[in-house]
Amino acid sequence: MNTKPTPEERLAHVAIVLKEPAFPGNIGATARAMKNMGITDLRIVTPPRDRMNEAYALAQHAGDIIDNAKTFTNLADAVADCHFVVGTTARRGGWRKKLQAPRELLPELAPTLAPNRIALLFGPEDRGLVNEDIVLCTHLVRIPTSKYLASLNLSQAVLVLAYEMFNAVYALSPQVEQQPKYATREHIEGMLAHLEEALDAIGFFAAGNREYFMLDLKRVLNRTRLEIREVAMFRGMARQMLWTAKRSKEFAMKELLERFSLPRNS
Amino acid sequence: MNTKPTPEERLAHVAIVLKEPAFPGNIGATARAMKNMGITDLRIVTPPRDRMNEAYALAQHAGDIIDNAKTFTNLADAVADCHFVVGTTARRGGWRKKLQAPRELLPELAPTLAPNRIALLFGPEDRGLVNEDIVLCTHLVRIPTSKYLASLNLSQAVLVLAYEMFNAVYALSPQVEQQPKYATREHIEGMLAHLEEALDAIGFFAAGNREYFMLDLKRVLNRTRLEIREVAMFRGMARQMLWTAKRSKEFAMKELLERFSLPRNS
Repeated sequence: MNTKPTPEERLAHVAIVLKEPAFPGNIGATARAMKNMGITDLRIVTPPRDRMNEAYALAQHAGDIIDNAKTFTNLADAVADCHFVVGTTARRGGWRKKLQAPRELLPELAPTLAPNRIALLFGPEDRGLVNEDIVLCTHLVRIPTSKYLASLNLSQAVLVLAYEMFNAVYALSPQVEQQPKYATREHIEGMLAHLEEALDAIGFFAAGNREYFMLDLKRVLNRTRLEIREVAMFRGMARQMLWTAKRSKEFAMKELLERFSLPRNS
Repeated sequence: MNTKPTPEERLAHVAIVLKEPAFPGNIGATARAMKNMGITDLRIVTPPRDRMNEAYALAQHAGDIIDNAKTFTNLADAVADCHFVVGTTARRGGWRKKLQAPRELLPELAPTLAPNRIALLFGPEDRGLVNEDIVLCTHLVRIPTSKYLASLNLSQAVLVLAYEMFNAVYALSPQVEQQPKYATREHIEGMLAHLEEALDAIGFFAAGNREYFMLDLKRVLNRTRLEIREVAMFRGMARQMLWTAKRSKEFAMKELLERFSLPRNS
């Protein structure tokens, strides 16, 4: 049977390919960013020779991604089993025609994932991808940035692409967040009537402006998308006001009775 | 006159607020991520005491943002002039009700920027925001992540929020990218006729399959959104084929004439 791939299956078909990263710390931060976004296939073309302890330090709980990273000596081999290769570049022009934003391209490619495989390719920190890398790409993206500083840190660029891929994949199979249970109009109207009764009981409308106040209150509470438990909270307040008003009346009555020394319940 | 704020003006009204960041490197990476996304107002509640050289090392060309950062001893002061405070949290539940995704919330808030000011607030690396910080927030966001590693590096979380804010602000005033000039149907049809004539001239259709081949070629070239200069390229190819075919015919004629020693132009 042909079933729709799960988001996890799709993300398992995304590879992050780093070409000649110079700084081990960037590999570690990349591994963490990948794991944050559910991507685990890390490929490195010519990794740095030493100081990999710095990579593990920055990877935090994503050391397994570094452990399982595949290494290559040339880019063509690293992407040989991929169906699409998305190159990232901060530069424009020259061979870099038709640059798309990641947010535009990745939702187009995400539905092809599983069985197809997509490589997200990043060049070295100092100079990015060169023309011979670009010809291996099926697509090119440029992360939109301020003109005052267009070049992102390597692991930050990886995060943006991974985040956009994660979002694109979950947009195909929406994660159902538990939605709050909102109050119905009936709940709201009942609550407003209860509040009006309570405010009246505590003498709030003595000065007159009842309609104006209730309209304002209604406007505010209508705008806030109240949940049922919040309606219950306001009704609790109303109940408390009514009880207090009643007690205060009883108390006043008692005082009055005592002052005139009248027998109770007479 | 009331004019629409520019994207730069809007982004100048966004502040990144770091509460008690422990690692100077994260402040540097945050400064760079901010500058990438056109945000310059950095506020730090209780900055680390030393090793700020590590911050400058990671900031690269964004050292000016660290130079101009404002420091505070408590969070309420840091956000006092802001109209909205967006807290970021990786945790759910408890006081953290109504978590929105940054991509959902920031486009709602972006139109209020300039004259209003928005703080994007991030807690310390190890434990995030605590309840007394949360009550200072007008909104809470949670970056969608894999369940296997929900906690982003501090500067990575800053980048995602800054990137979403940048996108939201530019969506209000779209950056007009220079669009390629695509070929019209007339250009395409003329080019296809030219190619057909040329392919015919070089004897390509001798075996018969002219219709099938032209249909396939048309399908491919229609799909590729050709630009005018690319149409010109194909027409150049067609011209060259026709010229070669003519030359080859002339050459064959010349050879024929010479073989039979007939006088030219006779």
